[in-house]
Amino acid sequence: MRFFSDNAAPVHPAILDAIARANHVDTAYDGDALSAKLDAAFSNLFEREVAVLWVSTGTAANSLALAALAQPHQGVICHREAHIEVDECGAPGFYTGGAKLMLVDGDGAKVAPDTVTALLNSIRNDVHQVQPAALSITNATEYGLTYSPDEVAALGEMCRGRGLGFHMDGARFANAVASSSCHPADVTWRAGVDILSFGFAKNGGMNAEALVFFDPEQAKTARYHRKRAGHLLSKGRFLAAQLLAFLEGDLWLINARTANAAARIIADSADGRLLHPVEANEIFIHLTASEAASLRALGYDFYDWGEGAARLVTSWQHTAADVTPLAQAIAKL
Amino acid sequence: MRFFSDNAAPVHPAILDAIARANHVDTAYDGDALSAKLDAAFSNLFEREVAVLWVSTGTAANSLALAALAQPHQGVICHREAHIEVDECGAPGFYTGGAKLMLVDGDGAKVAPDTVTALLNSIRNDVHQVQPAALSITNATEYGLTYSPDEVAALGEMCRGRGLGFHMDGARFANAVASSSCHPADVTWRAGVDILSFGFAKNGGMNAEALVFFDPEQAKTARYHRKRAGHLLSKGRFLAAQLLAFLEGDLWLINARTANAAARIIADSADGRLLHPVEANEIFIHLTASEAASLRALGYDFYDWGEGAARLVTSWQHTAADVTPLAQAIAKL
Amino acid sequence: MRFFSDNAAPVHPAILDAIARANHVDTAYDGDALSAKLDAAFSNLFEREVAVLWVSTGTAANSLALAALAQPHQGVICHREAHIEVDECGAPGFYTGGAKLMLVDGDGAKVAPDTVTALLNSIRNDVHQVQPAALSITNATEYGLTYSPDEVAALGEMCRGRGLGFHMDGARFANAVASSSCHPADVTWRAGVDILSFGFAKNGGMNAEALVFFDPEQAKTARYHRKRAGHLLSKGRFLAAQLLAFLEGDLWLINARTANAAARIIADSADGRLLHPVEANEIFIHLTASEAASLRALGYDFYDWGEGAARLVTSWQHTAADVTPLAQAIAKL
Amino acid sequence: MRFFSDNAAPVHPAILDAIARANHVDTAYDGDALSAKLDAAFSNLFEREVAVLWVSTGTAANSLALAALAQPHQGVICHREAHIEVDECGAPGFYTGGAKLMLVDGDGAKVAPDTVTALLNSIRNDVHQVQPAALSITNATEYGLTYSPDEVAALGEMCRGRGLGFHMDGARFANAVASSSCHPADVTWRAGVDILSFGFAKNGGMNAEALVFFDPEQAKTARYHRKRAGHLLSKGRFLAAQLLAFLEGDLWLINARTANAAARIIADSADGRLLHPVEANEIFIHLTASEAASLRALGYDFYDWGEGAARLVTSWQHTAADVTPLAQAIAKL
Repeated sequence: MRFFSDNAAPVHPAILDAIARANHVDTAYDGDALSAKLDAAFSNLFEREVAVLWVSTGTAANSLALAALAQPHQGVICHREAHIEVDECGAPGFYTGGAKLMLVDGDGAKVAPDTVTALLNSIRNDVHQVQPAALSITNATEYGLTYSPDEVAALGEMCRGRGLGFHMDGARFANAVASSSCHPADVTWRAGVDILSFGFAKNGGMNAEALVFFDPEQAKTARYHRKRAGHLLSKGRFLAAQLLAFLEGDLWLINARTANAAARIIADSADGRLLHPVEANEIFIHLTASEAASLRALGYDFYDWGEGAARLVTSWQHTAADVTPLAQAIAKL
Repeated sequence: MRFFSDNAAPVHPAILDAIARANHVDTAYDGDALSAKLDAAFSNLFEREVAVLWVSTGTAANSLALAALAQPHQGVICHREAHIEVDECGAPGFYTGGAKLMLVDGDGAKVAPDTVTALLNSIRNDVHQVQPAALSITNATEYGLTYSPDEVAALGEMCRGRGLGFHMDGARFANAVASSSCHPADVTWRAGVDILSFGFAKNGGMNAEALVFFDPEQAKTARYHRKRAGHLLSKGRFLAAQLLAFLEGDLWLINARTANAAARIIADSADGRLLHPVEANEIFIHLTASEAASLRALGYDFYDWGEGAARLVTSWQHTAADVTPLAQAIAKL
Repeated sequence: MRFFSDNAAPVHPAILDAIARANHVDTAYDGDALSAKLDAAFSNLFEREVAVLWVSTGTAANSLALAALAQPHQGVICHREAHIEVDECGAPGFYTGGAKLMLVDGDGAKVAPDTVTALLNSIRNDVHQVQPAALSITNATEYGLTYSPDEVAALGEMCRGRGLGFHMDGARFANAVASSSCHPADVTWRAGVDILSFGFAKNGGMNAEALVFFDPEQAKTARYHRKRAGHLLSKGRFLAAQLLAFLEGDLWLINARTANAAARIIADSADGRLLHPVEANEIFIHLTASEAASLRALGYDFYDWGEGAARLVTSWQHTAADVTPLAQAIAKL
Repeated sequence: MRFFSDNAAPVHPAILDAIARANHVDTAYDGDALSAKLDAAFSNLFEREVAVLWVSTGTAANSLALAALAQPHQGVICHREAHIEVDECGAPGFYTGGAKLMLVDGDGAKVAPDTVTALLNSIRNDVHQVQPAALSITNATEYGLTYSPDEVAALGEMCRGRGLGFHMDGARFANAVASSSCHPADVTWRAGVDILSFGFAKNGGMNAEALVFFDPEQAKTARYHRKRAGHLLSKGRFLAAQLLAFLEGDLWLINARTANAAARIIADSADGRLLHPVEANEIFIHLTASEAASLRALGYDFYDWGEGAARLVTSWQHTAADVTPLAQAIAKL
């Protein structure tokens, strides 16, 4: 059984069904009946008017968001280990026309207001230095930590005070919300977030992510950027179908709760081994090479995480029954 | 019945099946077993070693191709009505970092060596003027015309002589090949084409296009560009599945032949009305407003094409039985 | 005697003097006492508050202006033979992040409202097509024609009506103003121009051009762009010194009048040979190869302009005495 | 007397003379007789064939160099406090089309092979991560330290081994060479440097820097980039004149020695106060607010450097007689 990444999981059957049901003639690009329902569906979820663009990847969602918030000569503050900095091949630089990522530290890839403030205060306000225009955080973080509504609100307040836009990379937003049981609005726009990359691909989707603009006005230019980047699919109805199916009956939350519960079981077995608290569906544990080998011999696979550690990621597909034997094996190490 | 665009057609059932069959755990991005088969499958089709990248849209395919052939300070020659010039929101400028499209004329959006040569000869070879680095043609063209292998070869020879790369936008490559009955190799690399955007979305695909590098070396940088542009889908196996299903049993040709045959039937009914010869699956006809209204009253829909003309596009879904009544209605106008 | 280009002329002695007088310690970049005087000096000239940035070249001035008016996914309308299209190696594409130049025709490289309107009307207002954001004209044009205040105002009104920014490339603005005897304000901001590239290098300057923002607010981002493009010279005082010396005692107009007068003398001798009316300091004449050779044998040099024609450009340095023998030689051909 | 920056110093009289002597008609851009001599003059200095481009600023020189070495999807390694990272408003991102600066630490802004190697080893060789293409160091560094030929050679060897290009920002290259008494070739191409930004503006020039390509082939594309960036001045002969005048009689070294000697005198007076060894013409000293005030009361001005410290920079204009009273004042504090 594989715990490499939730990316590797299959597509949820309800999503495949929704794709099959969308398979009829309709207007191309985003002129179809399903795409037309997206704004209302997400506005309902977030309890305010939003504009939503479907895109095929989280990298595209994040980059379009950053391009909406920062001009080429400006900067975007993020964590040193943020996905946009470390794992997107410089996509933010491409989409923004050369804007700079300005890095801060923080345990578990979490960003706190004081580190951002310290960075801001170190920048001279003159034309020689890149001036920051936005903050981007990841929730859940790259290490599986979550932000509480209060933590996001503290950052949001700082952003407002310093004139910064505020983006949330929610590649695992569902896991974060499922974990904290907060309302999705409380951890986003009510806390000052301007744009959310709302991920579905890691949560049972096929190729659909939602880019949510809490200020619908900001979506206008992004629509051009999306086309210009080759992300306006001609059969966009198949992306809209996935997103709508996820919202229906809260499938997005159900899937995330399943993944989180599986992670919880593994984490509870790994007391003393955890590199980070397990708050979503990622588990980072100390594991010697021989311990890793013994787990692999039992049929479990996962990434090594540097020397003496490993990363396991659970997905919507992992039931308690699936992961309990793994948990027991870890406990016995 | 709709003849707006082959983009609007449904996905072919065999493609949906292939997607469903691919729905199991596998390595993310393009590390999966299906993606691994692409180079061999397309190499077999083209009778030479090629490197293939899946992407989600034709705009992405075209732009990645141009970025592989032209540097930011250079230019790409294309027809004034080429899709890359007219319908991609400046995507080539984005992907190439600002390279310039240099426009030539030609009936039916076809490009001929002499117009290109005239353009080339008008450019001073100094740093003040943008120097062309590549030629891009569309086959079938935006007006449904096709290039014979000899026509492509004449352009290819000119490209070699002038040091230009050679790209073919094959959004309707299948229709072009089906129409001319040539071997796909004869109208591409054997005729000097370096990179082909091989379209499948208009031919019954869902979200998969193949970017074919006849020089596999040129694909290396393109892989980084693809990631950087947010086009490396995490579940790429679903794109690979579509492409492989298209090649199996020549589904790509079968679908294109169906669409072409439907177009032929309509074209034959519209003698004297045709703006352009019908060589693939697009029909441009003179049609007064009242004639258009009368066809629409019968349940046929299509785009007006300026004043007094219309564009109809057939797809893999249009059988002879489907289009014969339309052909008869046109004949009776 | 050379008539290749006003670019090739020497620097006017008063400008060299001003440079020498500026040679003392002062604050670097544009923090010096001379740079601080620019806004006031140009505001005085233009009879309204303006913001002025010095730059070293017309290409930089034009590109910074376009980047202030158009976003990367937008377009700038200009003449097919505009300097920004033909002679700047794609600089506008570089500075704007890939915006597209959208070309119109017009005799003598002049742009008229109806050709622009026709272009605008041909563009679909959707995300597939590049949407124009600005118009750029050259005054005097690349063929030495000038715009009257009314002609500019007609374009300006159209720009306002269509939401376009309006840039004037004034590489030879001095010659245009000297020729028409209008007030510089009448042919710029009073006629709707937003940003002027006010050229001095062709008029006796060394390396200084003035980028004039009639809306000072638009200069704010341009200051970052200037630095980011490497155009914020550390000893900017030497550029400011040149610009101030040009405004003092109307040296800019005096020099332009001298060049225009010289051109007039040559033009009057070339009746029947002129390709374009001579309204500034450029003369385009029909000239056979043997006629050209005979003039060159007399010591006059100039560019061939295609087959059977030539371009002569006069400068501040050409007195009536200098050019009269040339005029007589032409008359005698 | 001001010690803010060598940027603020006047232009050396010999340079102004050279400018005046160049004031005659010649071919525009870089087609003039003086520009034509540059390659030979610098080839002579560096004892190998080089290609040289004049530009107006160090930022332009550095950015053109980086654009020659790194593609948009790649990275350039530099010190966290390098001028290209901290003081150029993101110019490298602009010129390279979005390439990323990858930062290393090191005392006094010096880069050592082991820190670079550690960074290189932390990067996965896959398309998700930006791959480094070049290293850029500053000599003398932003803190006035110099690299010995051996130190540069160690970095150069590492670059060759890892396939990296190697750029040296020599804004104060003259001061570095004057300080170490090495041959300019020994600390550049003989040590593996590919491209040198050879600074003259801080050393008594007006607006001329030399971008030296030790592989002349790499200059070819840079010539287009220079034009495209608006840095091909129409009267380039005035830049060439400055550079040639600097090489004549080793004025560049003489000026640098003067500045270094002045710095030495100040440094010797400030024993125990120095934040960094003084190896060129920059002095960083501990200085309380009241000490700084007392020096300023004596007529000396300089930048505060954070809390309790100051930066003083000497220039070609500062004689021993000029700085001795300052040194005595510091010694007495």
